[in-house]
Amino acid sequence: MEPLLIHGGDVYTPRRLPKGVELLDFSANLNPLGMPESVKAALIACADHCDQYPDPLCRKLRAGLEAREKVPASRIVCGNGAADLIYRLIWAIRPQRALVAEPTFAEYEMALGNAGCQVERFFLREENGFVPDEAFLQAVESGIQVVFFCNPNNPTGVMMGKDYLLKLAARCQQAGALLVVDECFLDFVDGGEKASLIPYLEQFPNTVVLKAFTKLYAMAGLRLGYLLCGNEALAEQISRTGQAWSVSVPAAACGLAALGERDYPSKTRDAIREERAFLWQTLTQFGCRVYGSQANYLFFYSSRQQLPELLLKEGILIRNCSNYPGLGAGWCRIAVRTSEENRKFAAALGKIIGEESSWQNLS
Amino acid sequence: MEPLLIHGGDVYTPRRLPKGVELLDFSANLNPLGMPESVKAALIACADHCDQYPDPLCRKLRAGLEAREKVPASRIVCGNGAADLIYRLIWAIRPQRALVAEPTFAEYEMALGNAGCQVERFFLREENGFVPDEAFLQAVESGIQVVFFCNPNNPTGVMMGKDYLLKLAARCQQAGALLVVDECFLDFVDGGEKASLIPYLEQFPNTVVLKAFTKLYAMAGLRLGYLLCGNEALAEQISRTGQAWSVSVPAAACGLAALGERDYPSKTRDAIREERAFLWQTLTQFGCRVYGSQANYLFFYSSRQQLPELLLKEGILIRNCSNYPGLGAGWCRIAVRTSEENRKFAAALGKIIGEESSWQNLS
Repeated sequence: MEPLLIHGGDVYTPRRLPKGVELLDFSANLNPLGMPESVKAALIACADHCDQYPDPLCRKLRAGLEAREKVPASRIVCGNGAADLIYRLIWAIRPQRALVAEPTFAEYEMALGNAGCQVERFFLREENGFVPDEAFLQAVESGIQVVFFCNPNNPTGVMMGKDYLLKLAARCQQAGALLVVDECFLDFVDGGEKASLIPYLEQFPNTVVLKAFTKLYAMAGLRLGYLLCGNEALAEQISRTGQAWSVSVPAAACGLAALGERDYPSKTRDAIREERAFLWQTLTQFGCRVYGSQANYLFFYSSRQQLPELLLKEGILIRNCSNYPGLGAGWCRIAVRTSEENRKFAAALGKIIGEESSWQNLS
Repeated sequence: MEPLLIHGGDVYTPRRLPKGVELLDFSANLNPLGMPESVKAALIACADHCDQYPDPLCRKLRAGLEAREKVPASRIVCGNGAADLIYRLIWAIRPQRALVAEPTFAEYEMALGNAGCQVERFFLREENGFVPDEAFLQAVESGIQVVFFCNPNNPTGVMMGKDYLLKLAARCQQAGALLVVDECFLDFVDGGEKASLIPYLEQFPNTVVLKAFTKLYAMAGLRLGYLLCGNEALAEQISRTGQAWSVSVPAAACGLAALGERDYPSKTRDAIREERAFLWQTLTQFGCRVYGSQANYLFFYSSRQQLPELLLKEGILIRNCSNYPGLGAGWCRIAVRTSEENRKFAAALGKIIGEESSWQNLS
């Protein structure tokens, strides 16, 4: 079988690293603080209950999410990671034509294509800093049944503000398109909550907000995401599309524990702020062009197009973004990791690009 | 949202039980030996790795399954429980017409209906002991694109032998239909391995065998199932249908640990044999008609049609089978549990039916 490894986070492929060098994963956009201790404790504590089927209705978890997100449980659907919900949502509504702003998270287009949907790609442009503009709003034309919009966008890290989002929601409502806003990285952005569409779900009932525990609580291995729907009928339809037990007992237990960690998002933002600035400076210093990057990852271009391979030799795995539609060789994404790891990244980058660029500066 | 609780195993709905009475779940068909200690240990040990994405290719697990099932890893697809794979398989092949022998596991028809497939129901008949016959083979006519066959069947517990299965596979091959044999309960049956179609997958490349860790290792909360495909192209197609990370880190780790438990299936069959006989005798003694029941559960009819509700008052949750197509009030399924639990079931049944039937015997 041909490998399906189009995403970051592949720490499983065996790699020959120089002796004594350990692999550092900068390719997956996970919280550098790691999984909260309370979540780990919940995982261990649930071992005695894993012999039972999970609750198909995720009642406790949805009640917890209702309290957290201020959206009634009847409009919340939980799933086996956000990616599971993308597929289920698409199977539920079976669209014929969709609009996606590229480059973005590959699973939207994968899932749409899988369901036989025609995908209109709107290409975000480097000269605009990959910021979507009026033209994207215009692209939501009649006949488009679903629009996927990632805010902040993955891989660019560009976050659009509330005004733009409300315009997009209005435009989708007018065109009769379902708007799916992926806010999986919004909690990593300073002031991100102000850009959330969650408070406007009732105003725009044909809107869905996608969120995940994966990134914010570094629970990627546990698989837990959720949808907040603008209307109950859609939530029910998505619930019915797919198996009864998509959320495992560990995922549900750990999700509840994570919800109990009230200050984790703000602690995370505090931890990321300075480190993101450090990485930004480092990349810029070594001649990379950085764009967007308002969340827990940085998106950049390096004229040294073999950078991902060269960094891997130094034990650093980054996301080679050359396989995103609209991008090409030289485009990369790195996660903001711990201070120590980020300095190792900087040292490796310096080793690869540093001498050359110092030489260029001198010449 | 309307509850989706059509299956057994619902231990989460709050119920008012008499003081001091604890709920015993006879409604889910799980191994009464529970989850192996090694699996529990693997779950706890993986807590430190749940911050990473799982391996999308499930490489270690599929290698373990290749060794266990003697099917190349390239024809094995792992999923978030067998139910996840039923949906993905159906989305992958998108059939127009399917054949299902009723009563059977409800997810086949749910998933088929969800994908807009027309389902032909072949009703198994009580007068034949719910045993499928030549007529079912004949029902595999041209135009049927997929046939679901559960062996042993859930809820009836009727197991068909190899000869019948090979006839069915030949018939499906002739008709151009994909045959999906669900062998999730086969390991519970004495001599069950002789009825498996796994050794014939190469002979019948348009056959898929569905298996799960859920029931055999009492890992229902962890969600892990797998498909063994007759051909590689189908395996790849199903892998591509659905998200990249459907198997969680705990599920993969626990699955590997379970595969290390070489004698668990035989120990389980030993544990079940006598208890199943005890429950069979008990049910018969109290006037219930028992059918099939060759696996870890018993299928029966009681003229006391309120039996599920009456047993619940005694703290015993059983599977009310009245919502299966082709069945009605009075049809029930119970799991074979531990010796102690089975005796509690017998006592409760005696309390409900016993006096009445003794009285009838006297009169």
